Amino acid sequence: MKVSSRSSERSEAERLVHVPLGERAYDILIGPGLIGRAGGEITSRLKGRRAAIVTDENVAPLYLEALMDSLQTDGIEAVSLTLPAGEKTKSLEHLATVTDMVLAARIERNDAVIALGGGVIGDLAGFAAGIVRRGVRFVQIPTSLLAQVDSSVGGKTGINTRHGKNLLGVFHQPDLVLADTAALDTLSEREFRAGYAEVAKYGLIDQPDFFAWLEKNWKPMFAGGPERIEAIAIACQAKSDVVVEDERENGRRALLNLGHTFGHALEAATQYDSARLVHGEGVSIGMVLAYQFSSRLNLASPDDAVRVEKHLKSVGLPTRIDEIPGEMPPTEKLLDAIAQDKKVKGGKLTFILTRGIGEAFVADDVPSSEVLSFLEGKRGK
Amino acid sequence: MKVSSRSSERSEAERLVHVPLGERAYDILIGPGLIGRAGGEITSRLKGRRAAIVTDENVAPLYLEALMDSLQTDGIEAVSLTLPAGEKTKSLEHLATVTDMVLAARIERNDAVIALGGGVIGDLAGFAAGIVRRGVRFVQIPTSLLAQVDSSVGGKTGINTRHGKNLLGVFHQPDLVLADTAALDTLSEREFRAGYAEVAKYGLIDQPDFFAWLEKNWKPMFAGGPERIEAIAIACQAKSDVVVEDERENGRRALLNLGHTFGHALEAATQYDSARLVHGEGVSIGMVLAYQFSSRLNLASPDDAVRVEKHLKSVGLPTRIDEIPGEMPPTEKLLDAIAQDKKVKGGKLTFILTRGIGEAFVADDVPSSEVLSFLEGKRGK
Ligand SMILES: NC(=O)c1ccc[n+]([C@@H]2O[C@H](COP(=O)([O-])OP(=O)(O)OC[C@H]3O[C@@H](n4cnc5c(N)ncnc54)[C@H](O)[C@@H]3O)[C@@H](O)[C@H]2O)c1
Ligand SMILES: NC(=O)c1ccc[n+]([C@@H]2O[C@H](COP(=O)([O-])OP(=O)(O)OC[C@H]3O[C@@H](n4cnc5c(N)ncnc54)[C@H](O)[C@@H]3O)[C@@H](O)[C@H]2O)c1
Ligand SMILES: [Zn+2]
Ligand SMILES: [Zn+2]
Repeated sequence: MKVSSRSSERSEAERLVHVPLGERAYDILIGPGLIGRAGGEITSRLKGRRAAIVTDENVAPLYLEALMDSLQTDGIEAVSLTLPAGEKTKSLEHLATVTDMVLAARIERNDAVIALGGGVIGDLAGFAAGIVRRGVRFVQIPTSLLAQVDSSVGGKTGINTRHGKNLLGVFHQPDLVLADTAALDTLSEREFRAGYAEVAKYGLIDQPDFFAWLEKNWKPMFAGGPERIEAIAIACQAKSDVVVEDERENGRRALLNLGHTFGHALEAATQYDSARLVHGEGVSIGMVLAYQFSSRLNLASPDDAVRVEKHLKSVGLPTRIDEIPGEMPPTEKLLDAIAQDKKVKGGKLTFILTRGIGEAFVADDVPSSEVLSFLEGKRGK
Repeated sequence: MKVSSRSSERSEAERLVHVPLGERAYDILIGPGLIGRAGGEITSRLKGRRAAIVTDENVAPLYLEALMDSLQTDGIEAVSLTLPAGEKTKSLEHLATVTDMVLAARIERNDAVIALGGGVIGDLAGFAAGIVRRGVRFVQIPTSLLAQVDSSVGGKTGINTRHGKNLLGVFHQPDLVLADTAALDTLSEREFRAGYAEVAKYGLIDQPDFFAWLEKNWKPMFAGGPERIEAIAIACQAKSDVVVEDERENGRRALLNLGHTFGHALEAATQYDSARLVHGEGVSIGMVLAYQFSSRLNLASPDDAVRVEKHLKSVGLPTRIDEIPGEMPPTEKLLDAIAQDKKVKGGKLTFILTRGIGEAFVADDVPSSEVLSFLEGKRGK
């Protein structure tokens, strides 16, 4: 990571992570106040002078005006579309609404679609940007912690269908990511924690030092000090490293799914009811299960599973299936959901397992019987 | 071009054009009877053993059973979806139907979507293949001449919206193209001629010898002799060359739009009513106009325009705007349609002009007043 110094208004603490993807290379700026300076950052990088902003009804009243003002100041003609908040917005119907609005705004190849919001808005707007005229420029302004450390970086876009989550989409890298860390102040505590699960994930995958740093510094990170910017920058750098090595998820990128195979099954079991479980909470429980399962397979020490669970619990994240409110389906049903997950190849179960803190790896051939008996043991059945 | 010899059943006349796009490289096979041998050609190249076929109601009764039989023989589990024929099928609604069917068939990354039909089916099915799970394998079995020589090669996919044609789509290269030349026997004379306009286009862009060859050999080519296979192979090779040089149409690929700026305006003026004008007919008139306009700008000799018009007329294609049945809008309206065409960059008119037969080039800065007075002169107003 390099501290950037291109703008005089830029705060000392601001970070720049460059994602070196050749023709598709881009910058991620991380720091407070970026929404109010978006116009300048965009015009210094993109040729077009039109933009179509997509946002949601929670984020719009907080940040849309500041963004529009900044774009106008820098001579970008912008229109905006405010959609309902929540996972249901990642649908084909809303994709149609977004693409229609982008085309009506006469966005051409060099103009931009701007996503202002969390991962839902980023995934939907990015998909639209990827298909309008077979691809127009795309700027991510992630406002949730999860979006800042995960979904806004790497180019995966998508929507959900009745067959499952994220089943339609394209790879379409953004041309710029502006992670305004001040915007996180209005995020609910629960959503912040959920995003934190993904931050911790990078430590657990292959950065044991970062995980140890988080164990020590999570409190100021939650409170919003320079530790927050630091942690987000490290997370973005980690995601960037993986994406650069494996842009289209043919191999190493799968490591980012640590905790997600179990997590997705739990999300599906709650019908994606965010009152019961949000994605990051599922990932939190899923990561603990992945460590416990790895220890059960004699791959990792049980102490590591204990340490992971302890830390996630201390920040207030759920770590056990029975913390999920409401009735949960029987274990066989959970396993079905795992088998239906798109990370299944030719019928075999693919899992991210681990040999310790920061030592995750892709296991291609996990017998479902092992998973079943492990989960049944966990649930005291 | 190389004559392939991998299969004993393969006819002497069969051609193979390889499109060397690195990771996305693929073969185009051209010859009679390929639909009946599709299973073997697919299994020898693709890993997956499932397929979802998309076709239209004209093509299905003619070729679907033969395709399904061949797939079954080679152990590919296939389902099919038959859609209405015609340009209106390239819509978001039909895209939703196709993606739903593909997901229901549990097509995974290595399985294939197969397009069996003309350019409409190819563009729609290819778009679906490009977005399901962010991209699954895609096999083109083009059955119209236009699809065999143009739309099935190069990876452009898309659908139409109320804002214009092909405004939503992705670049998604096929993994295999099977151009069964025997299927062209059931194509209407009119559709065959329309496809022929695109064949002649390759000669006019940069292969004067090919154009001269077509002037001599168009009759046996229409009748279905080895000249047909030869001409299709040359066209595919020409398209492949351009695509390999400029996969995403940032430069040279624009040459393929020779005749298309005028052509699209004429299509729009007839509301894409295929009873009045089909795409290739618009291209035929458009190419003649491009040569005449180039001669008017003193770029090309008027003799070339005469020669182009003479040849296209002799095969039975329209070459003048007033051959289009029904009322045509005033010239200013046509110009509006040209300006709205997506090949407009930053407001300026981009045209493919020419210095002679086989000497097309991209002109970025054509004043619309020149176009207006040229067209008004043509239309005797
Ligand atoms: N593309 C990828 O690589 C990738 C990676 C991980 C997750 N995702 C996707 O991301 C989505 C989850 O993202 P998310 O957790 O950001 O969900 P989200 O977009 O629904 O945001 C969570 C909630 O926070 C609100 N919000 C966002 N920013 C706010 C702010 N600054 N102040 C107040 N409220 C704010 C939103 O309105 C929403 O209600 C899922 O759909 C998931 O599939 C994508
Ligand atoms: N993707 C590209 O690069 C590209 C390039 C050029 C054109 N296109 C698109 O292609 C489309 C036009 O393609 P098209 O001309 O093939 O149109 P089409 O698919 O509508 O086919 C023309 C007609 O012929 C019928 N047909 C096709 N094969 C037949 C056969 N063997 N026997 C009997 N009937 C048959 C079809 O049912 C249809 O009625 C347009 O939508 C255009 O935008 C795409
Ligand atoms: Zn996640
Ligand atoms: Zn064409």
